[in-house]
Amino acid sequence: MSAVARVAGAYDAIEAAGRPEVWITLRPAADALAEAEAVDARTAAGERLPLAGLVAAVKDNIDVAGLPTTAGAPSYEYLPAEDATAVARLRAAGAVVLGKTNLDQFATGLVGTRSPYGTVRNAWDPERISGGSSSGSAVAVALGLVDFALGTDTAGSGRVPAALNGIVGVKPTRGVIPCTGVVPACRSLDCVTVFARSVPLARRAVAVMAGPDGVDPLATLLGSGPRGGWRLPATRAGAGAGGGADTDADARARADAGQARIAVPLPAQLAGLADGWAEAFESAAARLRSSGAEIVTVDITPLLEAASLLYGGSFVAERYAAVGGHVREHAELIGGDLDPVVATIILDAAKHDAVGYFADRERLDRLAARAAGALDGCDALLTPTTTLHPTIAEVQRDPVGVNAQLGTYTNFANLLDLAALAVPAGTVSGLPFGIMLTGPAGSDARLAEIAATAEPGERHDEPDVDLLVVG
Amino acid sequence: MSAVARVAGAYDAIEAAGRPEVWITLRPAADALAEAEAVDARTAAGERLPLAGLVAAVKDNIDVAGLPTTAGAPSYEYLPAEDATAVARLRAAGAVVLGKTNLDQFATGLVGTRSPYGTVRNAWDPERISGGSSSGSAVAVALGLVDFALGTDTAGSGRVPAALNGIVGVKPTRGVIPCTGVVPACRSLDCVTVFARSVPLARRAVAVMAGPDGVDPLATLLGSGPRGGWRLPATRAGAGAGGGADTDADARARADAGQARIAVPLPAQLAGLADGWAEAFESAAARLRSSGAEIVTVDITPLLEAASLLYGGSFVAERYAAVGGHVREHAELIGGDLDPVVATIILDAAKHDAVGYFADRERLDRLAARAAGALDGCDALLTPTTTLHPTIAEVQRDPVGVNAQLGTYTNFANLLDLAALAVPAGTVSGLPFGIMLTGPAGSDARLAEIAATAEPGERHDEPDVDLLVVG
Repeated sequence: MSAVARVAGAYDAIEAAGRPEVWITLRPAADALAEAEAVDARTAAGERLPLAGLVAAVKDNIDVAGLPTTAGAPSYEYLPAEDATAVARLRAAGAVVLGKTNLDQFATGLVGTRSPYGTVRNAWDPERISGGSSSGSAVAVALGLVDFALGTDTAGSGRVPAALNGIVGVKPTRGVIPCTGVVPACRSLDCVTVFARSVPLARRAVAVMAGPDGVDPLATLLGSGPRGGWRLPATRAGAGAGGGADTDADARARADAGQARIAVPLPAQLAGLADGWAEAFESAAARLRSSGAEIVTVDITPLLEAASLLYGGSFVAERYAAVGGHVREHAELIGGDLDPVVATIILDAAKHDAVGYFADRERLDRLAARAAGALDGCDALLTPTTTLHPTIAEVQRDPVGVNAQLGTYTNFANLLDLAALAVPAGTVSGLPFGIMLTGPAGSDARLAEIAATAEPGERHDEPDVDLLVVG
Repeated sequence: MSAVARVAGAYDAIEAAGRPEVWITLRPAADALAEAEAVDARTAAGERLPLAGLVAAVKDNIDVAGLPTTAGAPSYEYLPAEDATAVARLRAAGAVVLGKTNLDQFATGLVGTRSPYGTVRNAWDPERISGGSSSGSAVAVALGLVDFALGTDTAGSGRVPAALNGIVGVKPTRGVIPCTGVVPACRSLDCVTVFARSVPLARRAVAVMAGPDGVDPLATLLGSGPRGGWRLPATRAGAGAGGGADTDADARARADAGQARIAVPLPAQLAGLADGWAEAFESAAARLRSSGAEIVTVDITPLLEAASLLYGGSFVAERYAAVGGHVREHAELIGGDLDPVVATIILDAAKHDAVGYFADRERLDRLAARAAGALDGCDALLTPTTTLHPTIAEVQRDPVGVNAQLGTYTNFANLLDLAALAVPAGTVSGLPFGIMLTGPAGSDARLAEIAATAEPGERHDEPDVDLLVVG
């Protein structure tokens, strides 16, 4: 399909979907069509553009030149002159960006309800939450409005909404995609992520965006290779390294995928899942086992304890370092432009002292070493991506408590420098259920290979868009 | 020589040296001789012990079972039941520990004067400082009282005293030697180091102590390999990895050593050296050049700025996290048991907040990326180890200012996750001059190979012990 045809079709679908809350800024169709014409011209001239003919949405904490960036707060709005590195690389590869998507304000939340631009309704059931913070990006992909979308992920924001909308969410190893031009949530933990309906497409987009840009220091300092700690099985050490395009090593790893050793949590660590989810998780594990993987039960206590440090310790102070000054200076807007739950979290984060940070850092290092010991020799940890699928009303009744439950299996990954991949695993009671593979830094390609063996045999599930337009 | 003979000789030398301030606790000779007998028996029974027949001293912030640990503060003293991991490994390899050495209190200082156990006088000139914080360990080696000694290094404590006493100081990549049983200075930055009179002996001791112990989380998490950032020349990437024993890769690297690319600072960044030291440094660089190395001038501004963050920013709060509670609870001892300069630094470190820490961390990451860019493709940075050799009286007049000057080229290494090796480079005006090679994480073996090509052709310089006994 030509880029022009794809763009025109996408605007029709956006119009038909009746989900205006997905977008904070939808680009004028004429602008997008003009860019699509240029892409078609480049293709016609013989250029090979890996993302030509695809349309994308971008979370509104990532700069797109000429479109306002709000991070979900009208008072924070600025007009960037340049694309974020990730966006510039997508556009250079032929993708056309259609607009900027809604999010939990300052990327602080896993729910999709914390935005003055409106609560983003779930793609499958508009009474339920989309998940967040990358709410609009996930729903735009799930409804087929765009081919893929960018999110960000600090505590699960690129994975929880993937699970709740039945799509793929890739959270690469930290540092693989530069964060230049991204409004920080916790700068040292943030990752640009990709939502798509298939793992190969998501990874193609990651490959286009990967590599140091000379501006984001972590993209220079971290690289995409293994970094010690949790080691993959010896025979495959390094085989899955690299967050970029497929390589010979990837192909070798794929051939090995049947022999993967996959950790799953203790049964008690899977308590508290929504009705039917434990069974769905067991089915997913059984599919992996029947494809030849070895499934081993592992006590993930150190991971769960690390997760609790993200908001329960001083690490949250990094959110204040990012946008605390803005919130403090605009305190009169709390309840209006500024979401009260988000503002409370961020202002409260100023209370921690540096001595406490170093004590928490030591606790985290000890937990990380214990986690590495527990998972040593495993290719990946398999968990549900999240724990339940609340209604919007349920979140409004307990905004912090429900949010915390949603992050049980996602909160620890960035703190512990892990890669993760959320994939759909069928439906339960007519709503999507998602599983997640989490692996050590640099294991991105390996996770994708394993995910390929975990896919349900049936067709790709998707929401009934006609129904949703009515809903 | 038998272990028994070596131990007996060492006690004679200690007696003859007349430097009681070197030691905080000297072990009873009978105990050390009994241990030496056991070593000789093991050797006689056919065991191959890599450190048999060698005697060692241990800085008194590292546990030796049954000897008190003070960290230089009588009020902090405790009696450890177990050896530090590093010490246990040395003893298992046949080394006999003779005692615990003096240090700048809580390893906070580069001078050797900040101890209620007395100022440690320099091995070559008792009017001058030993350097610190590993003051007693360095002087014990320089005077030939022991074959090697353990220090620690957070900001240069394992290197500055090596330079000022004309010996070798090895600061391995962070995480190579576990810090279990070491009183922390800045836990996340601390390294166990080795002083010796030759690089091969120092590296043999490092090899014995290297490897995770299942207790220190950083030894598990960091490993000894390259970690992104500053990359070695492509043809040798990985050749110098590993902090342990020599390997085939090491041998290949040694064959390559003549082709090393060595960075040196801009001339302006070598201003402020003691009289004659700039010329001595130029001679050392010339020796490397004449042995085939390529010498390239590099602007090391990002390294020097990072150095200033160690005490000028919130990183110092980690010292409070380590021992701040003790100092605060014993404030009445400041000026007595507690060194007033050290106590002031540590108590003042409580003032930083976590938000400020995250801002400093971002500054440091940006500096680290700039440093990696500046040094990319170089095997090592060559600098003087320190900048001047003050008298004890000069330090007493300006204890903080002189200390800061001494750390110009050492303060940044641990913050930026670099390996470093300090080696003697002749004498200036009858006092030792030292140079230092600093390289990326995992470059430890490569630094040793390069150092071998930088050695002065003449005999090993050493202090005149007879003169010193008189002095």
